Amino acid sequence: MNFLNEVAARFPDAVSLAAGRPYDGFYVADDVERYLRVYRDHLAGTGLSASAIDRTLLQYGRTNGVIGDLIARTLAVDEGIEVPAEAVMVTAGCQEAMIVALRGLCAGPDDVVLAVEPCYVGFTGAARILGIEVVPVPEAADGLDPEAVLRVAREVRASGRRARALYVVPNFANPSGVSMAVAARRRLLEVASEAGLLILEDDPYGLFGLDDEARPTLKALDGAAGGRSVIYLGSFAKSVFPGARVGFLVADQVVVDGAGRRTLLAEELSTVKSMVTVNTSPIAQGVVGGVLVDAEYSLRAANRAKVEFYRRNMRALLAALEHEFGDDEPMTWNTPSGGFFAVLNVPFVADEALVEVSARDYGVLWTPMCFFYGDGGGEGAIRLSCSALEPPRIEEGVRRLGKLVRDLVS
Amino acid sequence: MNFLNEVAARFPDAVSLAAGRPYDGFYVADDVERYLRVYRDHLAGTGLSASAIDRTLLQYGRTNGVIGDLIARTLAVDEGIEVPAEAVMVTAGCQEAMIVALRGLCAGPDDVVLAVEPCYVGFTGAARILGIEVVPVPEAADGLDPEAVLRVAREVRASGRRARALYVVPNFANPSGVSMAVAARRRLLEVASEAGLLILEDDPYGLFGLDDEARPTLKALDGAAGGRSVIYLGSFAKSVFPGARVGFLVADQVVVDGAGRRTLLAEELSTVKSMVTVNTSPIAQGVVGGVLVDAEYSLRAANRAKVEFYRRNMRALLAALEHEFGDDEPMTWNTPSGGFFAVLNVPFVADEALVEVSARDYGVLWTPMCFFYGDGGGEGAIRLSCSALEPPRIEEGVRRLGKLVRDLVS
Repeated sequence: MNFLNEVAARFPDAVSLAAGRPYDGFYVADDVERYLRVYRDHLAGTGLSASAIDRTLLQYGRTNGVIGDLIARTLAVDEGIEVPAEAVMVTAGCQEAMIVALRGLCAGPDDVVLAVEPCYVGFTGAARILGIEVVPVPEAADGLDPEAVLRVAREVRASGRRARALYVVPNFANPSGVSMAVAARRRLLEVASEAGLLILEDDPYGLFGLDDEARPTLKALDGAAGGRSVIYLGSFAKSVFPGARVGFLVADQVVVDGAGRRTLLAEELSTVKSMVTVNTSPIAQGVVGGVLVDAEYSLRAANRAKVEFYRRNMRALLAALEHEFGDDEPMTWNTPSGGFFAVLNVPFVADEALVEVSARDYGVLWTPMCFFYGDGGGEGAIRLSCSALEPPRIEEGVRRLGKLVRDLVS
Repeated sequence: MNFLNEVAARFPDAVSLAAGRPYDGFYVADDVERYLRVYRDHLAGTGLSASAIDRTLLQYGRTNGVIGDLIARTLAVDEGIEVPAEAVMVTAGCQEAMIVALRGLCAGPDDVVLAVEPCYVGFTGAARILGIEVVPVPEAADGLDPEAVLRVAREVRASGRRARALYVVPNFANPSGVSMAVAARRRLLEVASEAGLLILEDDPYGLFGLDDEARPTLKALDGAAGGRSVIYLGSFAKSVFPGARVGFLVADQVVVDGAGRRTLLAEELSTVKSMVTVNTSPIAQGVVGGVLVDAEYSLRAANRAKVEFYRRNMRALLAALEHEFGDDEPMTWNTPSGGFFAVLNVPFVADEALVEVSARDYGVLWTPMCFFYGDGGGEGAIRLSCSALEPPRIEEGVRRLGKLVRDLVS
């Protein structure tokens, strides 16, 4: 992604349909003080003394964090995920949650992890940093196919390696925008049990559906059935703000620790977390904690304005694609039911060189889908983001993209 | 260290000469708002608009952080380290700086890292997480011997492996309390050049000398001689507060990136940093930035009260050891010239089982030195910390330790 940032810096007037960050307009620095104050008042309300609150925010603290209880409560309200506070590890963004989960699960030289392909580069990058092999499972047009997971898991086993986990984004995936149907989610949980896989469920966009349809997380479905096959990876980057760099993982699997005691996997993984960042800044945790308290533990309720904004943007992107390419035979795109991304298929190779041409000569930036494949794939597709702009700029970006496409195809 | 926390929790009345954390009394939660406000005013003073300040604190940001310029300026004032802002990477505590440096330097399967032994467990733990072998270089009573480094580096080379770096804490090391003489520091820089080693210099306690003697960092000595052999690992946990979880590394080595452009190693390492935590919370960076601005870029000046406090504590610890064990023939201890730690040698095996006995029956906790050795060593020594207590508790702790020792020796 450094390449895209660099091209964006060189062509500042280009419309960026590449940037997947949240919209700038939601952020006010005064909120930091406000929510920190809410969190401090909350701690005082639980009976903590002033000096204990000072220590909570400024001293070294518990490796797994101090707002696990608030996060567990929010997950229960918003997602129907019922876990004890001790099952939550607060991390330095969801990125660290991936590092901790990967390192904790893949300890041996034959341990590999499966991942949906195309895949979020943060996940494949985390695995690369740790020297862990990622085996891709191709995503279908209607999301990850559980039978494909089973097939790849068997191939891995037959090759003498051990597939420990599967990474998937069931709602409005980055980069594809695709979601899994509920029946497929249920079948995936069965497949995970059969294949002895844990599922690493990443859900940063789940709040941002185009409609109010309930999209149950894998973690909620599994928990309701008494299962423990899912480690839920959580982000507050879209639902609160990215600058807190606070994420989390939920790992309520019961394990036996080195001293023979039963504990939860999240607590067992604290050994890894302590060696990556010691603990997550309690100041940053306090800001997010204040947001959760202020929202009465419902980010769904607190995010109504953002949900409306991103819905409007996604509808604007899909309408602009229809307007620009609706009469164009070879042009196809998918229609995500929410989130920040859609994929446009093009009848030419969309690579780095073309991004540069597009930014310089056409004034529009986008992301080659081939960036999200490990070993070939996605050459004829581009990812379009609609999160960081307002509708008129999205429409302008798609118009410029139309000109590029027509010049290349004609 | 989990073991010690657990024992401490079970015996809350035990005096902890094990806890190496800074003293609680310095921390006031209101400081967070105050320093954040200073940082925001500073940004406004540089010409940033209100909305740009909002974005700086709350949006995704530059991987290597936003306060590199303030840190570079502070290093110049306090340490005579002259580096451009681009040589500084802000990290989620010094722990992440170790992870990033280790992963960036040791990429091949034959790459190993040398480290002083006894060694801070955060460093050996970081290497373990990454699967990087740590080859110990034994520390002498007067600090790391450069000739020993040269010898070990040659042995490693002869074995077909590649020693990429050496980890060392030149000032008041954790756990030994030992410091390197200036002549040894100069010789270590020569040795590093000869052996093709980078030095990872960790200096969390450098401000806290018992006297005002100048103790030049390896980075400053190297830079003054035009060298680039040192990566400086920085912590604000003791000089500001631990709860920010802000650290940094300084890597001003010139390297050639994938696209053939000359850049600084810190910028090259941003690829690793982005896959560990994306970027360090700009809110936490802002709090630390505010402290640096408020201190007019001298943590040495801003820390006078803390320096006095820790000096008084170290003097109290050494005086208590003299009082308790001065007439006891077999008992010896070292006399650090600053920092948080001293080592007491005892005529028995000091292990986990004995810590538990000591906490339960004698009401005093300490850290077995064997925790800081990879493969045997330190069995007859204990680390005593004097940072978290006030002098009367330190004295009481040493009295209780005296009773344990006499019961075991008689």
